[in-house]
Amino acid sequence: MLVRAVFFDIDNTLYDSATLSKMARRNSVLAMIDSGLDLPVEKVLADLGQIIEEHGSNYHWHYDELLKLYGRCDAKIIAAGVVSYEHTKNAYLKPLPGVVPTLIALKKHYRIGAISNGLTLKQWEKLVGLRLHHFFDSVVTSEECSCEKPAPEIYLTALKSLDIKPDEAVMVGDKYDVDIIGAQNIGMHGVWLKKDAPKNSNEINRFSDLIEVLKGLK
Amino acid sequence: MLVRAVFFDIDNTLYDSATLSKMARRNSVLAMIDSGLDLPVEKVLADLGQIIEEHGSNYHWHYDELLKLYGRCDAKIIAAGVVSYEHTKNAYLKPLPGVVPTLIALKKHYRIGAISNGLTLKQWEKLVGLRLHHFFDSVVTSEECSCEKPAPEIYLTALKSLDIKPDEAVMVGDKYDVDIIGAQNIGMHGVWLKKDAPKNSNEINRFSDLIEVLKGLK
Repeated sequence: MLVRAVFFDIDNTLYDSATLSKMARRNSVLAMIDSGLDLPVEKVLADLGQIIEEHGSNYHWHYDELLKLYGRCDAKIIAAGVVSYEHTKNAYLKPLPGVVPTLIALKKHYRIGAISNGLTLKQWEKLVGLRLHHFFDSVVTSEECSCEKPAPEIYLTALKSLDIKPDEAVMVGDKYDVDIIGAQNIGMHGVWLKKDAPKNSNEINRFSDLIEVLKGLK
Repeated sequence: MLVRAVFFDIDNTLYDSATLSKMARRNSVLAMIDSGLDLPVEKVLADLGQIIEEHGSNYHWHYDELLKLYGRCDAKIIAAGVVSYEHTKNAYLKPLPGVVPTLIALKKHYRIGAISNGLTLKQWEKLVGLRLHHFFDSVVTSEECSCEKPAPEIYLTALKSLDIKPDEAVMVGDKYDVDIIGAQNIGMHGVWLKKDAPKNSNEINRFSDLIEVLKGLK
């Protein structure tokens, strides 16, 4: 079957969300300390990390919980953390090298979609912030499917949204057990974007190598 | 009595919130249209304005309500509006000319406070975004006082927070009936920051003229 659609994971595939989170957390902690939170950086970072792990990354009151842990409630400190997180996030929300030219090239031949574990509005906000939203014909999230990758339903919903059969579609993502296994389970092709050197024909470590891999699938 | 403290309104006094709102709304509407909302700019702007008036500016679902009005529910369009609003807000959240040097000069002689109708965290986030938060010894909001300017309680709470008597304090703001009348009602000095030329000794149209006015009060 001819490949007609390419689906992408978002976080750590289209942009470096790991570095974004790490830098935004660190800068927010530095800003809170600068605004009167008299504690060591590494301790506050560890406590914040635990709160985010506990409540999930889409919880709205991480900084309130953090200050509560220290027996404090200071809007100045919370505001310093929130604003620094947002500013740092905006600074790091950039497409990974190769993403934009590759999407431009792919757009000529394929429908483009995203399949992402996350909240629908938040994931669209990331695509808008990345200035990639116009490339995407479909974005399907775990929120709207009520199930997360690697569950088959989320992939099937994405395929249905573009009227594509599994073997006409490729899934590109950084998490083998989530993105690739999930896609292959329902008969989609999988291309694993990994940090170390690729060993198989469906592995890449540079986003732009995707174009060559897709040629091989035809 | 010697003046010992200067209190400021925040919106339209420390920064141009009117222009910020206007530009952020317009850019958000342009971004939504760019992302598929096929309606005239001025119509969408008018509808958005009405929704904000109805729900207040601190409501979180303005864009959801707007799309609902058009019988739509599209996370791509909402995300485009939200992100454009936030980016534009950050671009316009700058201290008005004269604010920073004047605060630096005043800080040598006076305690500095803010008295603002708004939500505590939101107002602190503005001060942090303006990079003015370190100047302020006290920020008192209508949220924490459960009453808005010109009610006496909010001014009395602010004075108490710095242990200052009314006639030792000056209130600076752009709204005569709110900021100035309210302050004078409890015996504080009032300096009206107005757009047109000042006619009285307690009126200024440039922020930096505050220093001369305060000298006259000593």
